[in-house]
Amino acid sequence: MSEFEIRRASEDDLPAIVAMLADDPLGAARETPDDLTPYRTAYEQLAADPNQHLVVAVRDGRPVGTLQLTVVPGLSRRGSSRSIIEAVRVHSDERGNGLGTRLIEWAVEESRTLGCRLVQLTSDATRIDAHRFYERLGFEASHLGFKLQL
Amino acid sequence: MSEFEIRRASEDDLPAIVAMLADDPLGAARETPDDLTPYRTAYEQLAADPNQHLVVAVRDGRPVGTLQLTVVPGLSRRGSSRSIIEAVRVHSDERGNGLGTRLIEWAVEESRTLGCRLVQLTSDATRIDAHRFYERLGFEASHLGFKLQL
Repeated sequence: MSEFEIRRASEDDLPAIVAMLADDPLGAARETPDDLTPYRTAYEQLAADPNQHLVVAVRDGRPVGTLQLTVVPGLSRRGSSRSIIEAVRVHSDERGNGLGTRLIEWAVEESRTLGCRLVQLTSDATRIDAHRFYERLGFEASHLGFKLQL
Repeated sequence: MSEFEIRRASEDDLPAIVAMLADDPLGAARETPDDLTPYRTAYEQLAADPNQHLVVAVRDGRPVGTLQLTVVPGLSRRGSSRSIIEAVRVHSDERGNGLGTRLIEWAVEESRTLGCRLVQLTSDATRIDAHRFYERLGFEASHLGFKLQL
């Protein structure tokens, strides 16, 4: 099996990324892969913001994983920046191949390179397998994640 | 008792903000209010980033509360931006006066104005009073918050 590469997402990757966001128990009801217009607008914002790192994992030219890494400067912890991981997805064909681990390890290493002192993410309370996964990678479920829909 | 005003923090507010970050059971071990140098560097990053909104609540010219609101663009949820609230503090003299509520309500309203579809925050699992506070304000503890120190 060929190796995969993690690289910055381009606009051409949008259909594949949105399909992965939608192919998920929670994402299915929230995404519209048949209408990419709102995603293209958001992609332009991401591409213009130096603190945003939207990446894809590519195998044989095909995007099969994605995540978004955001660097957040801040005053807390002696002016430390932290990074936030969002929108982690692995294509259904590639689950169980260690690709999720590679993506998170990439994000942790990139956060270190970018000078962050902390990496954080939230995971829906129903995603029990994901919780075990993050704990295996050294993350600690030390916080509750609160959300308010507007 | 006079009303307070919520406004963007200036560099002159840094000593008061850092003192509030440090005057906290978790912050005491993490902050160095006697050495502002790293905070000044971080403040410059915050001030230069249009997605960062560091504010203070001021009463009679004195900063007595603070929070940082970050807008994060993203592809998920049809290209929705979300906002993240961090580093919420209320001066010990002002607790129980409704200032925390005013700060969070400000952040929610500002998030709406900025086009966000979701407001999120994490709260240390030990801060039980804070959890009740956020639930009263309409937030749902739907997620676990994972952290990894670098």
